Amino acid sequence: MSASRITSVDVACNQAMGAAPWFAATDLPTRAGLLRAIADAVDASIDDLVPIAMEESRLGEERLRGEVGRTTGQLRLMANVVADGAFLGVVIDHADPSLTPPRPDLRRMNIPLGPVAVFAASNFPFAFSTLGGDTASALAAGCPVVVKPNPGHPRLSEAIMAIAQDALAGAGAPAGVLGLVDEQVQTGIDLVNDDRIEAVAFTGSQRGGLALAHIAAERPRPIPFFGELGSINPMFVTAAHLAGREKDIATGFVGSFTLGAGQFCTKPGLLIAPRDEALRSALVDAVGGAQGQRMLTDAIRDMFLAGVDQRVGIDEVEVLHQGGLDDSTDSVRPTLMAVDAGTILAHPDLLEECFGPMSLLVEYTDEEQMLALADSLPGLLAAGVHANGDESILADLLPKLSAHAGRVLWGGWPTGVAVTWSMQHGGPFPATTRPESTSVGAAAVQRFVRPVTYQSVPAAWQSPAVRDANPWGVPRRVDGTLELG
Amino acid sequence: MSASRITSVDVACNQAMGAAPWFAATDLPTRAGLLRAIADAVDASIDDLVPIAMEESRLGEERLRGEVGRTTGQLRLMANVVADGAFLGVVIDHADPSLTPPRPDLRRMNIPLGPVAVFAASNFPFAFSTLGGDTASALAAGCPVVVKPNPGHPRLSEAIMAIAQDALAGAGAPAGVLGLVDEQVQTGIDLVNDDRIEAVAFTGSQRGGLALAHIAAERPRPIPFFGELGSINPMFVTAAHLAGREKDIATGFVGSFTLGAGQFCTKPGLLIAPRDEALRSALVDAVGGAQGQRMLTDAIRDMFLAGVDQRVGIDEVEVLHQGGLDDSTDSVRPTLMAVDAGTILAHPDLLEECFGPMSLLVEYTDEEQMLALADSLPGLLAAGVHANGDESILADLLPKLSAHAGRVLWGGWPTGVAVTWSMQHGGPFPATTRPESTSVGAAAVQRFVRPVTYQSVPAAWQSPAVRDANPWGVPRRVDGTLELG
Repeated sequence: MSASRITSVDVACNQAMGAAPWFAATDLPTRAGLLRAIADAVDASIDDLVPIAMEESRLGEERLRGEVGRTTGQLRLMANVVADGAFLGVVIDHADPSLTPPRPDLRRMNIPLGPVAVFAASNFPFAFSTLGGDTASALAAGCPVVVKPNPGHPRLSEAIMAIAQDALAGAGAPAGVLGLVDEQVQTGIDLVNDDRIEAVAFTGSQRGGLALAHIAAERPRPIPFFGELGSINPMFVTAAHLAGREKDIATGFVGSFTLGAGQFCTKPGLLIAPRDEALRSALVDAVGGAQGQRMLTDAIRDMFLAGVDQRVGIDEVEVLHQGGLDDSTDSVRPTLMAVDAGTILAHPDLLEECFGPMSLLVEYTDEEQMLALADSLPGLLAAGVHANGDESILADLLPKLSAHAGRVLWGGWPTGVAVTWSMQHGGPFPATTRPESTSVGAAAVQRFVRPVTYQSVPAAWQSPAVRDANPWGVPRRVDGTLELG
Repeated sequence: MSASRITSVDVACNQAMGAAPWFAATDLPTRAGLLRAIADAVDASIDDLVPIAMEESRLGEERLRGEVGRTTGQLRLMANVVADGAFLGVVIDHADPSLTPPRPDLRRMNIPLGPVAVFAASNFPFAFSTLGGDTASALAAGCPVVVKPNPGHPRLSEAIMAIAQDALAGAGAPAGVLGLVDEQVQTGIDLVNDDRIEAVAFTGSQRGGLALAHIAAERPRPIPFFGELGSINPMFVTAAHLAGREKDIATGFVGSFTLGAGQFCTKPGLLIAPRDEALRSALVDAVGGAQGQRMLTDAIRDMFLAGVDQRVGIDEVEVLHQGGLDDSTDSVRPTLMAVDAGTILAHPDLLEECFGPMSLLVEYTDEEQMLALADSLPGLLAAGVHANGDESILADLLPKLSAHAGRVLWGGWPTGVAVTWSMQHGGPFPATTRPESTSVGAAAVQRFVRPVTYQSVPAAWQSPAVRDANPWGVPRRVDGTLELG
């Protein structure tokens, strides 16, 4: 490995500003090529990177190798998004002097916002970290990126940054397209406050995210803050569906909430089901059989254990299976509790995410109570329903889930996100700070662009993206009619 | 006219909440039909509405009749946007079990945010007021609207609301799709604070807008605030273009900044040109010949006169033509001042909008100074350049204008916005609070929707918008490939 890739906020922002005009002016094949060059270089270094990630994150090799594939898959999806060109949102209206008032020639397209600060997450040291979805989509937009690394994996952050910077340089990009600062909290604050930063993407805790969101909003010149802050992700089970499926539901649910030691943003934190002894005992069996797992960091483990203690301490909460820490292996066994739906309505703190292998069975007595619970949900990344499909309750339940969540699942475990054109990984506050945005999938690029309309600009000074001849072959709307690229 | 259409915030929000599920579930022809029904009813009442508007706004009949046409044109454009269906942003990825991990069936579409509060503007009593672009685009999104009327035209607001509500009822809509509260400042604050309101659209002053934006951000559950807060709208003239065109530029510029008594958000507040005596004298001639005009309200007039006095009081500001108030007719004559570019760089307060018939000639000595000025601009709704087209300076100047403005104009006067598919009427802070949004044109609807992805939801429970058979005929992306509707 070469010299450190970490610079001061000032140097990183200056270099990002320096690279911004060049990067904004890249044509689509060039920009897509940069993303693919990074992906190829990371794939080629997987054997060097995974051992560092194993040491720093305590995650297993198979999981981490899969995550590298996901990460380079994200970079390549974003390359495809760039090459496709629809993200430019090109709309052309030709001049029409016959109108009152006469309409001038108007050409609209999205331009990059400028340098973006990316705050890396702990739980996916590749896929939501230094070169994760936020970085990939900001680069796709044509925005230089300054990464504030996650303190959970500093060596990995620097190693993968070195690979990406070298790949960019090899592909002809100037310094500053991608930069790295140190992992200190104050460094992150300084970065969000820097006037050269035009947008922030963050994945992490609600407390940290809201503090940074406040800074972004209170700067002399406020900037958009795209924070993905976690979610309780309730899964509803109807009575008609439950009958005879208690064991399958218990197995699927426990497998999903304990996956990755419960350290996923889509972990199902509530199972909302009719009170049913067979379900209870199937759940206890499934949780009892689950392995202990090490958590990402000591701090995350300690915060999790405190969160479990706090919930166990609530009178109305019944512990179905008490997990906890095995000191000899530093592994954490999962915990499952139960409350009745009425308790949840009186204890909104039980609707807050507890990051780690625990979940809550919420037992309802009738459909009215289940619907009242659906109404009282906070903003969610995901909500699901396990139903037969012929229950009349669905006509009421499904719109309530849509109203609270960015993704509505019908059945299925686990509850993770696919990286694809149609994904929405976002949701109403407090799941995110920007419900109209997604941090996963093709639409993630839209966070980092804004439209500009060019009025009567001569063809010679138009971006190729908006020229009549459509040299870039982008999909567009011309005089009101959509055209494929 | 029937009984008052004004209700309390509580009643308006309750009715909006009641109507929201019905409205969200309307199919596209029904929703488009509601917008067209409102437009038809307003057109049919033009002879009743214009006299009220003339009395309350002090604007002329011809202007107001034209504005009614623009307003109903906006409603009909939004009906076309609804019928087109592209605003739903439908993306479908079919299940693919061959992938690792297997991909489930995923269907993404935009859903309405819910009840929207619209703060009406003073300067377009039809087009940016009760039934203006914000209301039209929120209705197009499927969001019920509660209007906080502008205090400048209370009777007009109620009259046009009555027409719209009756048209909606006649077309089968329930009460609550469109509501009106009173014009008090506190009512507006209560409305933004109401938990049932999901988004706010505002057109008005920077001070009022930022105060409301702060409330929207500090609510227990923050909501998006789309504020269009005004802009200085600089127009750059190159030396090569100026030579021989001094008089045309002076006439066009003065006509544009005095149009509507300078009470347009796209008023050119700066003319940035080489120091040139012929231009100066042509400008003085043109301003001297301009008529006095009445302003919208006494308060707006007094604030304008104070703003002129403040600028006249700056030592480095030279008054080229002093206008002012004609007491006998309550009309205001335009004022034009001059400063050199260096002064502007040291006096950023001269870059703040002064709402009314005044503008500033900014004289530069060389291209370097002109580019430095372009770099120091705040966020803008519009910026323009008057150039021959062969000046090398344009390669530097045009990207700087794009970086600061939502719309870049090449020549042309006046600088107003067209209502069409390609318009962008927005811009970086402080021109707006949401640079990615527009308050005019087809894309205005995007402010009031957010995406939801439905995972493995059976066809019977899918919205028609995302069904394979595409019964609504919407444009969409299926398995990565764009398809026309």
